[in-house]
Amino acid sequence: MTLSIAHLGPPGTYAEQATIFYVNWLKKSTEIEAILSPYPSISQSLHAVADGQAQLAVVPVENSIEGSVTTTLDTLWQLDSLRIQLALVLPIAHMLISCASNLDKIKTVYSHPQALAQCQGWLERFLPTAQIIPSNSTTEALQRLGQDTTTAAIASSRAAQLYKLPILASCINDYPENFTRFWVVSHGEANAAYQTSKASASHTSLAFSMPANTPGALVKPLQIFAQLGINLSRIESRPTKRSLGEYLFFMDLEADAKEAQMQSALAELTTHTEILKILGAYNVLSISGVT
Amino acid sequence: MTLSIAHLGPPGTYAEQATIFYVNWLKKSTEIEAILSPYPSISQSLHAVADGQAQLAVVPVENSIEGSVTTTLDTLWQLDSLRIQLALVLPIAHMLISCASNLDKIKTVYSHPQALAQCQGWLERFLPTAQIIPSNSTTEALQRLGQDTTTAAIASSRAAQLYKLPILASCINDYPENFTRFWVVSHGEANAAYQTSKASASHTSLAFSMPANTPGALVKPLQIFAQLGINLSRIESRPTKRSLGEYLFFMDLEADAKEAQMQSALAELTTHTEILKILGAYNVLSISGVT
Repeated sequence: MTLSIAHLGPPGTYAEQATIFYVNWLKKSTEIEAILSPYPSISQSLHAVADGQAQLAVVPVENSIEGSVTTTLDTLWQLDSLRIQLALVLPIAHMLISCASNLDKIKTVYSHPQALAQCQGWLERFLPTAQIIPSNSTTEALQRLGQDTTTAAIASSRAAQLYKLPILASCINDYPENFTRFWVVSHGEANAAYQTSKASASHTSLAFSMPANTPGALVKPLQIFAQLGINLSRIESRPTKRSLGEYLFFMDLEADAKEAQMQSALAELTTHTEILKILGAYNVLSISGVT
Repeated sequence: MTLSIAHLGPPGTYAEQATIFYVNWLKKSTEIEAILSPYPSISQSLHAVADGQAQLAVVPVENSIEGSVTTTLDTLWQLDSLRIQLALVLPIAHMLISCASNLDKIKTVYSHPQALAQCQGWLERFLPTAQIIPSNSTTEALQRLGQDTTTAAIASSRAAQLYKLPILASCINDYPENFTRFWVVSHGEANAAYQTSKASASHTSLAFSMPANTPGALVKPLQIFAQLGINLSRIESRPTKRSLGEYLFFMDLEADAKEAQMQSALAELTTHTEILKILGAYNVLSISGVT
């Protein structure tokens, strides 16, 4: 059987880059064949898995400079049936891609808002008068370029190659340490075939809403893990969308949900939360070099 | 003296609407005259205050559906000298603005990513095949419309009036309870003239980085306030931009930083944090009706 893996398209996005890495890893370690299915949005990639059009999705969850990809968190909260199988960490290097002969010619720069924000300092310094226009993906920005010598786009070097467009400036991200973390998500429960280790997971992700907004309400859930010496590697709040000032919390913990200690912590957690969802227990794979 | 108040422009944005409300309030309650200064980005509005080009800025900090406006948080962390003087809560009602005679004609919809996200469900239901294109502000989207009957933009009813464009569908936000919270920010310390009450503030906002990522590190800061019965009304994490997995925390507390109890809590907090910044103590003003 050939798997279908949904990701943000069109071809040339960082999400596609992470997906290609995962497809190669999957083939090498489990001999499972997979094909890439690009979708126009992150939300649609996740819905494709929930609806059974694809078996897996590779979605960005967090960038080290710009923070959470909130669409991913909000869609995972909505779609009950999805589980995280693996995390992938991709190093990000943004290129200024343009047919212009030099920077002086550039009047307009297109890219995804996350990429624009990650290069904000560089743009203010080297292209202070250029108009900055957001696009739905880094690749969509490239497609707007054509042969026009007054426009530029920000995307990966792989995307420049793919669209046969020249790189005018390399590694223009404001912080050289720039990484995006992706989640490999499937329908239903943990599936050893999609994971790096059958034995144990290094991380568990969960999300919960709270019964009431009282002083100290968030302390209790945090204390449960602190008392067991389980490190909270990330906490993110998102609006419940019911009213201003009501939040959901997303937590990443450095422990396996299957361990006895975590099982009792999670049981205790249910008494302090309104709705609790275990998003998955998984390991992290670092992507080195460009695929 | 006439004050200059920076906000995200061009005219017709929700930020401008909040600013107009504040200018009217300021005139009525303190007889201070103020003029509006639109800037092309939220970050530039805040920098204008830090650089002395404007005395105040009105910037969005959070929407009840889409969550934090991360540019505002990140810029306030960078710019040491700014202080929150007041919070404003604006009800949001998005309109589909277009010269098209009906929805079937519309091929493209422009708006700010926050507005597009807040109408995502409506767009998927009523305009499933339309191309969705992000813009830098809701007003910029309107400026792209012109008389073209195949395009539409999402903005406020006030913006439609301002640009003399017809509203094709009203209140298209997915959740009718949609509010954006803004902060009125000045240079330097608290200034009673900009505030609703000289006596006391209902909220204090602060931000801090942590000395180390160990189990329970975040529990201590939360415990300090919980033990004193001080409610935490919001917590938000943002990347430090140093490396993946290192965070800053932004907290809103329901207490006045000037109170003795809060003073001792803040003193204790410094022993558990690396850098601690008090962003301001302030009251909240609800904007009812459209200005």
